[in-house]
Amino acid sequence: MQHYNQLLALFNTKLEEEIEHLRKREPVNLYEPVIYTLNMGGKRIRPVLLLMAYEMYNDRFEEALPAALAIEMFHNFTLLHDDIMDKAELRRNYPTVHLKYSGESAILSGDAMSILSYEYLLKCPANNAAGIFALFTETALKICEGQQFDMDFENRNDVSVNDYLKMIGLKTAILLACSLKTGALVGGASTKDANLLYDFGYFLGLAFQLQDDLLDAYGSTNDFGKNIGGDIVANKKTFLLLKSLELANGNIETELRNLLSASQFDKTEKIRAVKNIYNQLGVVKLSENEMESCYAKAINCLNNVALDENKKSHLYSVARQLMKRNS
Amino acid sequence: MQHYNQLLALFNTKLEEEIEHLRKREPVNLYEPVIYTLNMGGKRIRPVLLLMAYEMYNDRFEEALPAALAIEMFHNFTLLHDDIMDKAELRRNYPTVHLKYSGESAILSGDAMSILSYEYLLKCPANNAAGIFALFTETALKICEGQQFDMDFENRNDVSVNDYLKMIGLKTAILLACSLKTGALVGGASTKDANLLYDFGYFLGLAFQLQDDLLDAYGSTNDFGKNIGGDIVANKKTFLLLKSLELANGNIETELRNLLSASQFDKTEKIRAVKNIYNQLGVVKLSENEMESCYAKAINCLNNVALDENKKSHLYSVARQLMKRNS
Repeated sequence: MQHYNQLLALFNTKLEEEIEHLRKREPVNLYEPVIYTLNMGGKRIRPVLLLMAYEMYNDRFEEALPAALAIEMFHNFTLLHDDIMDKAELRRNYPTVHLKYSGESAILSGDAMSILSYEYLLKCPANNAAGIFALFTETALKICEGQQFDMDFENRNDVSVNDYLKMIGLKTAILLACSLKTGALVGGASTKDANLLYDFGYFLGLAFQLQDDLLDAYGSTNDFGKNIGGDIVANKKTFLLLKSLELANGNIETELRNLLSASQFDKTEKIRAVKNIYNQLGVVKLSENEMESCYAKAINCLNNVALDENKKSHLYSVARQLMKRNS
Repeated sequence: MQHYNQLLALFNTKLEEEIEHLRKREPVNLYEPVIYTLNMGGKRIRPVLLLMAYEMYNDRFEEALPAALAIEMFHNFTLLHDDIMDKAELRRNYPTVHLKYSGESAILSGDAMSILSYEYLLKCPANNAAGIFALFTETALKICEGQQFDMDFENRNDVSVNDYLKMIGLKTAILLACSLKTGALVGGASTKDANLLYDFGYFLGLAFQLQDDLLDAYGSTNDFGKNIGGDIVANKKTFLLLKSLELANGNIETELRNLLSASQFDKTEKIRAVKNIYNQLGVVKLSENEMESCYAKAINCLNNVALDENKKSHLYSVARQLMKRNS
């Protein structure tokens, strides 16, 4: 991960510069929650992937950094608004913006972040700016669609595993895909390569989200920065739950449906009982299989990018590392 | 207003087409509140002003309609999110989105509208697209800043009339300014003309908002589409209130401060009492003077646009009409 960390440092230096600019803007109450959100940290996977795709074609990083900022800003905007909608209390071990400031602040500062991402994108080199703007806008809208599907699923009893995969495709995977394609386009890649990198990012994103769901149930709070078992407590229709509903019958089905419909319960006990069912049905293994299948598709796309293997080595490496994380 | 209505009809036809496209998108729960909001109607002042500025330089309206849609979509997005933040119940005589659907819907569909406005803007002719994107983005961010200033004012006791004018400049006037300048730029106007039209829109916007505040206190519910006296009930720091706080002394000041600090009150009685104070202090006249001064500045800018008077006649006419409205 040495190279990842180098690009991360490059990005973080630029981000810190931008945060200093944001500190000078008014009104303070609009920009403070933006800065608070950006300062929560995170792995910065999207901007680093963008820079990795870019550097396969070009080495003037200054050209690619505004787009990297745009993507990271947009991602943080979606987290901020999602946290209001999900009534989340914790994000990366920090109180969420709507709790620390207010619901109104979280809405408005989020809106500003969405627009700031366009401000950064406008600083992209102009030769293929229209295509980059179009990709970003299409992606941004699809992410909203993904979030709506996610919310709709809460009230639906007919959600399939495929519906779920489509939803996480929109909500999560396409922003990784967009990051890679944008980096490639800014760097001057061919359309074919740029699209292969998009697909690489898409399948990697699916694998990433499947793993995130596993970590939500089986990670440790300390590493993960969220309360463990939150998805289970909220009856969130993840791969694990949907697959369990598909497979369960008899006593196990009854027990699972009772756990899901109980309006009063002890959180720790519910998490224990649901995970016990997951273990009995073997859905953790099935989720890992799906994750590995997505990962294999991603690698196949990267294999087909028309560059020397050594140019692609960093992307292979980061893909491998992402699949090994515990947070 | 015959010409206004012709351009309005042109815009509305295009908008209806777009609404039909939106009906086909998924998920339905994301796009339905968008359509609901767009179907509330309204005067469509911003897109019509954009088309009026455009037609002074060019006659291929198809070129200008995407930008007109973008501006109207963005305006409706800000109304939707402002209504959540202001806990408003009624918008153009319809229940607000967060009441009709949910707070979550209102947030997310608003986010989608903000991005949809970029989707429309991307359909602008490409020759000066970068400048148009930059203007739009700068304007969008300033509108968020204006909304934050507006919210900050609620908790501040040192707001001046000038602070207020700066705030409505950001929150309201610059979108009218941006509409006119965008229309001019799409039409191929010189930078000088485009900037004069921006300033014309800015000062007209200030006059427009000052009048809106007057109508909130002195209009009729039926014409205005909002509950009359809402600003007074909420202690909203409008020109009328701020000027009154500046001028009031003795018994009137005591009465006004008591009215503002009362936590329990009869709404109708509070509105009556505050308006009585406004009348005693003559602040309605002062607000009208400020409005007329802004209007005169707007007209002066339009006078300086380097075109024949007959080309500008529609803008003169719409400016006059806007100042005569009662809703």
